[in-house]
Amino acid sequence: MTESLSRRHFLSAAGAGAASVWIPRSTEVKGFTAAEMREQASGGRLAAGVSMWELDTPCLCVDLDALEGNLDRMQTTVARNGIASRPHAKTHKCPAIARMQLATGSVGICTAKISEAEVMFEHGIEQILMTTVNVTPPKIRRAMQLRKRCAGFIQAVDTAANARELSEAAKEAGVVADIVVDIDPGGHRTGITAGAPALELAKLVDTLPGLELKGMLCYDGGAQHVSGFAARKERALGSLEAAVGTKVQMERSGLDTGIFSGGGTGTYNIDHETPGLTDVQVGSYVFMDAQYLGIGGEENPEVYTDFQPALTVMTTVLNAQYEGRATTDAGAKANTINRPWPIVKGETGMSYTSGSDEFGSIRYEDNASRTYNVGDKLEVIVSHCDPVVNLYDQLYGIRGDTVEVVWPVAGRGKSI
Amino acid sequence: MTESLSRRHFLSAAGAGAASVWIPRSTEVKGFTAAEMREQASGGRLAAGVSMWELDTPCLCVDLDALEGNLDRMQTTVARNGIASRPHAKTHKCPAIARMQLATGSVGICTAKISEAEVMFEHGIEQILMTTVNVTPPKIRRAMQLRKRCAGFIQAVDTAANARELSEAAKEAGVVADIVVDIDPGGHRTGITAGAPALELAKLVDTLPGLELKGMLCYDGGAQHVSGFAARKERALGSLEAAVGTKVQMERSGLDTGIFSGGGTGTYNIDHETPGLTDVQVGSYVFMDAQYLGIGGEENPEVYTDFQPALTVMTTVLNAQYEGRATTDAGAKANTINRPWPIVKGETGMSYTSGSDEFGSIRYEDNASRTYNVGDKLEVIVSHCDPVVNLYDQLYGIRGDTVEVVWPVAGRGKSI
Repeated sequence: MTESLSRRHFLSAAGAGAASVWIPRSTEVKGFTAAEMREQASGGRLAAGVSMWELDTPCLCVDLDALEGNLDRMQTTVARNGIASRPHAKTHKCPAIARMQLATGSVGICTAKISEAEVMFEHGIEQILMTTVNVTPPKIRRAMQLRKRCAGFIQAVDTAANARELSEAAKEAGVVADIVVDIDPGGHRTGITAGAPALELAKLVDTLPGLELKGMLCYDGGAQHVSGFAARKERALGSLEAAVGTKVQMERSGLDTGIFSGGGTGTYNIDHETPGLTDVQVGSYVFMDAQYLGIGGEENPEVYTDFQPALTVMTTVLNAQYEGRATTDAGAKANTINRPWPIVKGETGMSYTSGSDEFGSIRYEDNASRTYNVGDKLEVIVSHCDPVVNLYDQLYGIRGDTVEVVWPVAGRGKSI
Repeated sequence: MTESLSRRHFLSAAGAGAASVWIPRSTEVKGFTAAEMREQASGGRLAAGVSMWELDTPCLCVDLDALEGNLDRMQTTVARNGIASRPHAKTHKCPAIARMQLATGSVGICTAKISEAEVMFEHGIEQILMTTVNVTPPKIRRAMQLRKRCAGFIQAVDTAANARELSEAAKEAGVVADIVVDIDPGGHRTGITAGAPALELAKLVDTLPGLELKGMLCYDGGAQHVSGFAARKERALGSLEAAVGTKVQMERSGLDTGIFSGGGTGTYNIDHETPGLTDVQVGSYVFMDAQYLGIGGEENPEVYTDFQPALTVMTTVLNAQYEGRATTDAGAKANTINRPWPIVKGETGMSYTSGSDEFGSIRYEDNASRTYNVGDKLEVIVSHCDPVVNLYDQLYGIRGDTVEVVWPVAGRGKSI
């Protein structure tokens, strides 16, 4: 079977992680609700251990050993490569994890939304680069109010009109706003065109009274999930070439290019080869997910094993009376419908789908490593971590099979 | 062009609804944050009108005229057909809308989760049928505690073992729990097999202390989205045939069949032809969505026009500097990635996708009815209402273009 192992099997095996410990299903199991777990966790940390199998489901769990290993792997790698990490908090939306990232060497965090940035600052995070432009008057005002309280808040801009609005709002708020120019890597989703347009904008920002140019940002989201290390490297380095040229032009014009932020989890060990890039906006590496497992890595072309799958949804079997299948309580509202589908952790020969809003569906293959009874609990490795995290109010930090911490997902739903 | 109108065009036109009133984009626009809107809306209702175009985005809006029309259409139809409606609150998760449904004649509501049922009861809803089985000890205890306070709470069961557990828990809690037997319509997702197995279970429930049999439930989710009225009718009536036989057997055995609940938005005007069916568990009709628009109706085979699209996500254009496209602030975290993609309300010749977590993407066709500038706001008809609602903490009720109410989505995230 060694050579004929399917990719699916590899992916399952990659998620084996902690040994599966099954709690007996009986009325002796106390079971704790989400609210009870919050009460028990004073300041986030639980005084006494609670088995993860006592949690009510669906719930979101992170394996702390895997999470810490992922933080270490990232920080060790970027430090060795002479760049920094500025992790994207849109992935975890947890101030507690942002603090861990800063404590282990990250130079700051990124956020996608002003509401996320506000939440992170309220929870003590003071180095925040917001990667999305703010274009409406209320958001611009909020951004300047945040800047007033948070000296480390950096904003993105990609049009001259917006730069002028930010400058006016900064003056009105009595602040000087730190700005990076967002440069389009070629996908035309966000940012301004590299070369002359970006250079002109950078010069404008540099001259506007309420703004202070701090550099640039160029993020190629599409590069992150390119399958195969060589193809990913070619794409990632190629799509940032024009931005590298712009940076040189900015330097010749005497503009500040102290920040040149880009890259992500898929290219974290490639991005230092982009000349002048200062930091990677890595997000998913903390948790990993089925989407990233499938892209393959430099060492393992089949599975991206650089980081360990740490994030799971725990679910309970509701129906097991039909041949070859079981129904669980974690459907689309608990898992999203991203593909590939979630992967049952530590098991092989079964698939999991979450196409129904309220129900997950397990289908057994002939070689399924086990079957389930009503009331059994299992974990699935999430398909795509960012939108799944956004469905939950709290995240359970698990060590072995014990709940160690309960973290509020303070940025959950902060899409404004 | 009359005959060559594409389905896409039909779908767009179906969403035209209220005229588009564009607020000028300028710093004179005050703009209100989500928190400010909550503050202004004492008891949900706004004292003074706020233009919907002042809302910050992304945000979730419901057109109140369309919502009220949908409630009326449903209630008029089922009443004429001699059955009742028991709308599913998993769709809207809003106690305010549940109250409107009860006030206009619905016999109760359904919920998918115990946490949803608890929230609805806390907000004054007293007739609740929970359509999913509770199989874990904590959930069973919660259900019985809810039953203790809520005389109108009805629970589902689909195995003998679970019935015995419920009976024990009911005795422990000092209540008699009202029960419906959940019968599988053939999809093998939930429920017990119709015929002898279901009959045996009904008899068991009838004899167990602590439980009181109230009837049955048989919901064929797959039937709801079958395209074409005739095909949908055949599927819906066919899949419930075995349950109808079971009901007859139950009656012969002297068992209570006062409730025979099933059906949904796609089959609301078909289900009364299932002999003995008492009520439809309709959910999506209140809001409608792009998925339901595409199934076609009895009157209009192209578009399901029985109900009006009432639910939209309002979004703001962030980037408009690239030919043929624009980027908005409502991606997957604001819209999900359900298909068909959201539909731009009131416009034609453009598509909207929300495949990126943070960004929506508009692509213009040659005949696009308009293009957008940075800062422009637009509404999109949601793809699939249930999981989209589950992303938002509040829902703005709009009359014309004025915000009339701010409803908390009290059941948001209640997936446990």
